[in-house]
Amino acid sequence: MKKLEDKISKNGKVLSDQILKVDSFLNHQIDPVLMQEIGNEFAEKFKGEGITKIVTLESSGIAPAMMTGLVLGVPVVFARKRKSLTLINELYSASVHSFTKEEKNEISVSKDYLSQDDHVLLIDDFLANGQAVEGLLSIVEQAGASLAGVGIVIEKGFQPGGEMIRNRGIRVESLAIIQSLENGKVSFAEGSTL
Amino acid sequence: MKKLEDKISKNGKVLSDQILKVDSFLNHQIDPVLMQEIGNEFAEKFKGEGITKIVTLESSGIAPAMMTGLVLGVPVVFARKRKSLTLINELYSASVHSFTKEEKNEISVSKDYLSQDDHVLLIDDFLANGQAVEGLLSIVEQAGASLAGVGIVIEKGFQPGGEMIRNRGIRVESLAIIQSLENGKVSFAEGSTL
Repeated sequence: MKKLEDKISKNGKVLSDQILKVDSFLNHQIDPVLMQEIGNEFAEKFKGEGITKIVTLESSGIAPAMMTGLVLGVPVVFARKRKSLTLINELYSASVHSFTKEEKNEISVSKDYLSQDDHVLLIDDFLANGQAVEGLLSIVEQAGASLAGVGIVIEKGFQPGGEMIRNRGIRVESLAIIQSLENGKVSFAEGSTL
Repeated sequence: MKKLEDKISKNGKVLSDQILKVDSFLNHQIDPVLMQEIGNEFAEKFKGEGITKIVTLESSGIAPAMMTGLVLGVPVVFARKRKSLTLINELYSASVHSFTKEEKNEISVSKDYLSQDDHVLLIDDFLANGQAVEGLLSIVEQAGASLAGVGIVIEKGFQPGGEMIRNRGIRVESLAIIQSLENGKVSFAEGSTL
């Protein structure tokens, strides 16, 4: 997605060979117009798939997921990062390790909002080591729901998550795929805008 | 806002005289179409105020804030609930006590995304004891930004937050004001749909 790549090139901050900060339009400050365009793009890719629900993870997945849900006309469920006071047997949950933050989170979705009748599109802001997506996939599986695919705003192509998930036969659509952050420069993979 | 009140009456769960659960369309599962209408409503109320930025709190404030930002054409910043690895002197922060969850959160906004040039609309999903809004107001003040007002999706009129904030001369627009949750029934305050 050309406009997203331009935004990353212009406003992303390369903190190291591994870390890209996109706090100015995606993770902390949000650009609503860009989010709308991202939502349109995901909806275009997955329309006609019979999706009944979008599942994402708080907090940075909510904006792109909601814009996609608006276009597809389906509800969005965001997995929470820690257990509320709700009883554990009312939840689907999975353990997710964050390499960036060096912490483990329990993520969970209420059984009320995901079932075997659902055909799910997973949306997340980043795909790097794939831990968050794996956790969400586990939740979809626990619910007995089927999966249409995974929509990612920014994939770090030089980290193993994308390959790992595609190797399971899962359709992954990333709107921007970063090939390298070396020398403080963002390089995109060929064809990431397909 | 009639449609919001209808949704609360139909899908809200009264757990006690104090607690209303709106997990099915606002706090966990999100209804994107309702969020768009909520965004339109806030934008209508605050248009012409010269707002430059919307500030909210993760996670449940993000959806209504983003829809409002889309209509007003301004960025949204969501305060984070715990410190990241970023240096503390790059953040505005405030301490927020949650009565519902019986915990204290540090909320913070990067100094990069809020300044004295900003005229801010605060948006949040709930107003009850007013702790979250007080924290956000403190952050706006620390930034030296000016405040247009506060937009709340659901105000619990029987708890002190709304009065406390209005008594400081701050404009608070709540799209639904709940007068009582007694006897398992949601009663709305007169005029909350104005």
